[in-house]
Amino acid sequence: ELGHFEEDANKIKPEYVKSFLHVSKLMPSTWIVIRIDGCHFHRFSDVHEFEKPNDARALNLMNSCAVSVLEEFKDIVFSYGVSDEYSFVLKKESQLYQRRSSEIVSAVVSLFSSMYTMKWKEFFPQKELKHPPYFDGRAVCYPTSEILLDYLAWRQVDCHINNQYNTCFWMLVKSGKSKSEAQNYLKGTQAQEKHELLTRLSGIIDYYNTLPLMFRQGSSVFWDKQEEEEIANQGKDAVGKCYKVVVDHCNIIEKSFWEAHPEILGEKF
Amino acid sequence: ELGHFEEDANKIKPEYVKSFLHVSKLMPSTWIVIRIDGCHFHRFSDVHEFEKPNDARALNLMNSCAVSVLEEFKDIVFSYGVSDEYSFVLKKESQLYQRRSSEIVSAVVSLFSSMYTMKWKEFFPQKELKHPPYFDGRAVCYPTSEILLDYLAWRQVDCHINNQYNTCFWMLVKSGKSKSEAQNYLKGTQAQEKHELLTRLSGIIDYYNTLPLMFRQGSSVFWDKQEEEEIANQGKDAVGKCYKVVVDHCNIIEKSFWEAHPEILGEKF
Amino acid sequence: ELGHFEEDANKIKPEYVKSFLHVSKLMPSTWIVIRIDGCHFHRFSDVHEFEKPNDARALNLMNSCAVSVLEEFKDIVFSYGVSDEYSFVLKKESQLYQRRSSEIVSAVVSLFSSMYTMKWKEFFPQKELKHPPYFDGRAVCYPTSEILLDYLAWRQVDCHINNQYNTCFWMLVKSGKSKSEAQNYLKGTQAQEKHELLTRLSGIIDYYNTLPLMFRQGSSVFWDKQEEEEIANQGKDAVGKCYKVVVDHCNIIEKSFWEAHPEILGEKF
Amino acid sequence: ELGHFEEDANKIKPEYVKSFLHVSKLMPSTWIVIRIDGCHFHRFSDVHEFEKPNDARALNLMNSCAVSVLEEFKDIVFSYGVSDEYSFVLKKESQLYQRRSSEIVSAVVSLFSSMYTMKWKEFFPQKELKHPPYFDGRAVCYPTSEILLDYLAWRQVDCHINNQYNTCFWMLVKSGKSKSEAQNYLKGTQAQEKHELLTRLSGIIDYYNTLPLMFRQGSSVFWDKQEEEEIANQGKDAVGKCYKVVVDHCNIIEKSFWEAHPEILGEKF
Repeated sequence: ELGHFEEDANKIKPEYVKSFLHVSKLMPSTWIVIRIDGCHFHRFSDVHEFEKPNDARALNLMNSCAVSVLEEFKDIVFSYGVSDEYSFVLKKESQLYQRRSSEIVSAVVSLFSSMYTMKWKEFFPQKELKHPPYFDGRAVCYPTSEILLDYLAWRQVDCHINNQYNTCFWMLVKSGKSKSEAQNYLKGTQAQEKHELLTRLSGIIDYYNTLPLMFRQGSSVFWDKQEEEEIANQGKDAVGKCYKVVVDHCNIIEKSFWEAHPEILGEKF
Repeated sequence: ELGHFEEDANKIKPEYVKSFLHVSKLMPSTWIVIRIDGCHFHRFSDVHEFEKPNDARALNLMNSCAVSVLEEFKDIVFSYGVSDEYSFVLKKESQLYQRRSSEIVSAVVSLFSSMYTMKWKEFFPQKELKHPPYFDGRAVCYPTSEILLDYLAWRQVDCHINNQYNTCFWMLVKSGKSKSEAQNYLKGTQAQEKHELLTRLSGIIDYYNTLPLMFRQGSSVFWDKQEEEEIANQGKDAVGKCYKVVVDHCNIIEKSFWEAHPEILGEKF
Repeated sequence: ELGHFEEDANKIKPEYVKSFLHVSKLMPSTWIVIRIDGCHFHRFSDVHEFEKPNDARALNLMNSCAVSVLEEFKDIVFSYGVSDEYSFVLKKESQLYQRRSSEIVSAVVSLFSSMYTMKWKEFFPQKELKHPPYFDGRAVCYPTSEILLDYLAWRQVDCHINNQYNTCFWMLVKSGKSKSEAQNYLKGTQAQEKHELLTRLSGIIDYYNTLPLMFRQGSSVFWDKQEEEEIANQGKDAVGKCYKVVVDHCNIIEKSFWEAHPEILGEKF
Repeated sequence: ELGHFEEDANKIKPEYVKSFLHVSKLMPSTWIVIRIDGCHFHRFSDVHEFEKPNDARALNLMNSCAVSVLEEFKDIVFSYGVSDEYSFVLKKESQLYQRRSSEIVSAVVSLFSSMYTMKWKEFFPQKELKHPPYFDGRAVCYPTSEILLDYLAWRQVDCHINNQYNTCFWMLVKSGKSKSEAQNYLKGTQAQEKHELLTRLSGIIDYYNTLPLMFRQGSSVFWDKQEEEEIANQGKDAVGKCYKVVVDHCNIIEKSFWEAHPEILGEKF
């Protein structure tokens, strides 16, 4: 039997078979952004009864996975997450997987997915994970840090717009409207009208701005300098380990954030 | 504060930012193969003390994840796995993610990774999952079923060659040789010599062929017709549900397998 | 001075500079079609007073250039031209420029352009070439000969539809209508109505089918067997040279053409 | 007959056929370089008896074609040529052909080829054009002007190295050595040795630097400000037309050239 097998085996021409692989490399010296998005997360969040419009536990789980991704892939210098999406920025000079697009995207998505499943119990101790969570991903290159910051600002603006809409929508639903009534009500409303609606429905002045920053501005995950005291507490072993991955909910549209953290992009603004 | 934010937001030009996305679509009417490979699985298998040269529990876990992938993505018509790699074949006409390469690869890798983590306890009830398992992936298109079968044959040949080598290597190590001694011993040996070595070391005639088929031929996962009796036992509800995903360890190099399962590729040979 | 130059020269890192080149290879074992189109040929045909709706000299010039392209690039097995466009089909196994897309497209376009300029005087002996003719091009792969024939049929259908329209349009203009009147007149007319219009305006029954085949069916250029007699006349030197490039105006939508010329694609239908 | 044709025509699905076209767009906001190279120009230069190692008429013809290319494609801001190659730089913001790679490369190559053929008689009045000249081309993107200048410097260094070698080679051949003797003689020689060889063989001190700049530094073609007087001579019509395409043989490795022509790249250095 095996003799037959080995006879067949010799007919295979691996070089020919391998020639069909088309390796797509990302342009050198450009910022690589890997953006991942939850697949069927509407269903996933229903099944697991996520709170609407924002579930803090689910967002903290996403952030915790992002921290792990940064700790594993040292070339990632910044990441930004909102809802079920996360964007990871690799430094311009990165040679991760020789900049092969498929490998970078798939490895990041895969690690994120594994972490999400492993850490589930930590964030949802009372809930069983009923379906496997999964994500798709893509890579985009940006030739300059200016355009990279435009990309990140775009994501944060989206976070704000979506959150404002969703906050109104769910407050209307909780006030007794049906989902389609709520949708119709909000059609065409401007930011200012939504503000006033929230104030009216909640009875709280400037209600929107009382919401947690994480809901309104999303989450930024990056390597940051530890306070000296914190280092001191860790004793001798901490020498040289003065950076750690932090989660923040800062405004990344304003230049001031980047000026205060020049080491993230390694460039001046 | 928000007014300021909204002022900034209006400066963002999403169309410009989005124009940097380069969508790579896979050629229509060709077979798409997604191959995934474990990242750092040498380390992963050490940490979790996998048996050498093959750990049946780990292979069964891989196969179980593949079954889930086929159940979720109906366009996958066949898959083949060996060691820490798995290849998934999408039918030629598939419009999954409009054939966007990044999305298909990342979604398959992501679901596989989540399943691997979720099912770990089922296959390793005594072992804690210490590190997140993760995989990278890539897509390759093949224009005809002949070349697709050449690809699959190549993977099965590789399975055989690696398994024969590894079986010898670990038997030498268990017999007292160091790893580098075993390596040197095997350098340049032909298939026939490896066969004789195994017979000699094990004291069992034709020892290699006594090994489980899963080790020697890898695992094929595909939709197969259920036996009539099996369907009957399930009662009325099973009407029309006559296919299910099966795991087999067949020889896929020989045409006879494909002739016996013409519905897999939907083509004649 | 040179010393300075050589000092500067040593700072250049060619490998880094070369790493930005992204080589795009066309999928192996697929039919490659290079289609070229005239750039600004509306202007070009006005300046050189081409006859409307078809200028036989200009079409014959295009065909003559295509013949030269087939004689230079032996991997081209068929080509089809209409108006200022030409499609060249390379055989599936072609390794021309290692299937690098840019190189194949640019070399074919470049040779065609040079030939067009060199042969101009032969086809337009009374007209000076006032502007440089130029073309753009692109490569498309087709995985099977069935889809390749669909592509060619699509081009021939386009030829027919455009020619029928243009013949009506220019006959209306010659009958005294303005160009915009002619355009409005034809808006929404079906094939049958155009037929009747041509019969009425020309006073000739079934006028359209009296037009030269080259106008109605475009031009096919391919290697064809020479008649035995023709070879005999050329004497001993012609032994083995029994193929030559021919220009024909056949119906390539019907399978009968391909059945009669099985050696073009080297496949059965 | 036509009825049959139209019946066939209706079976064609253009959308399906068109779906095989893979449009490759060049990354926005990056410098695009189109480099073209002569195909079989060794043979071409032999057939047309070009002078060795440099034929000034042939180089001037190349430069004249480059001027025409810049005049036609206004987005080209600079070009550099040496021997039978030419590099064209498009401005970062260019939307030529919506940045589709195939179209840009093929149109530039095609126009250059047509011009070469049309202008041949002007530069070689005594020589008939026996073969069609043709070129292949490719597009490369550079994310910053620094890397773009590295690319151009690399081409100019190549020009210098090749010219020095070829000058030695042909002087040895003219001195009576065979081609293979000359090749062996030069194997492994350094720049300094080649300098001394040229001085010795020619009997002229620092012979290399007496050669025309066009041979030693190649040709740069770009839009430059006309002298005011020159404009004045052209009278009123020249108002606003103060730029024209010039051919220069400057050192483009040194920053001073770019500092003196800040409008070429529109950036500061």
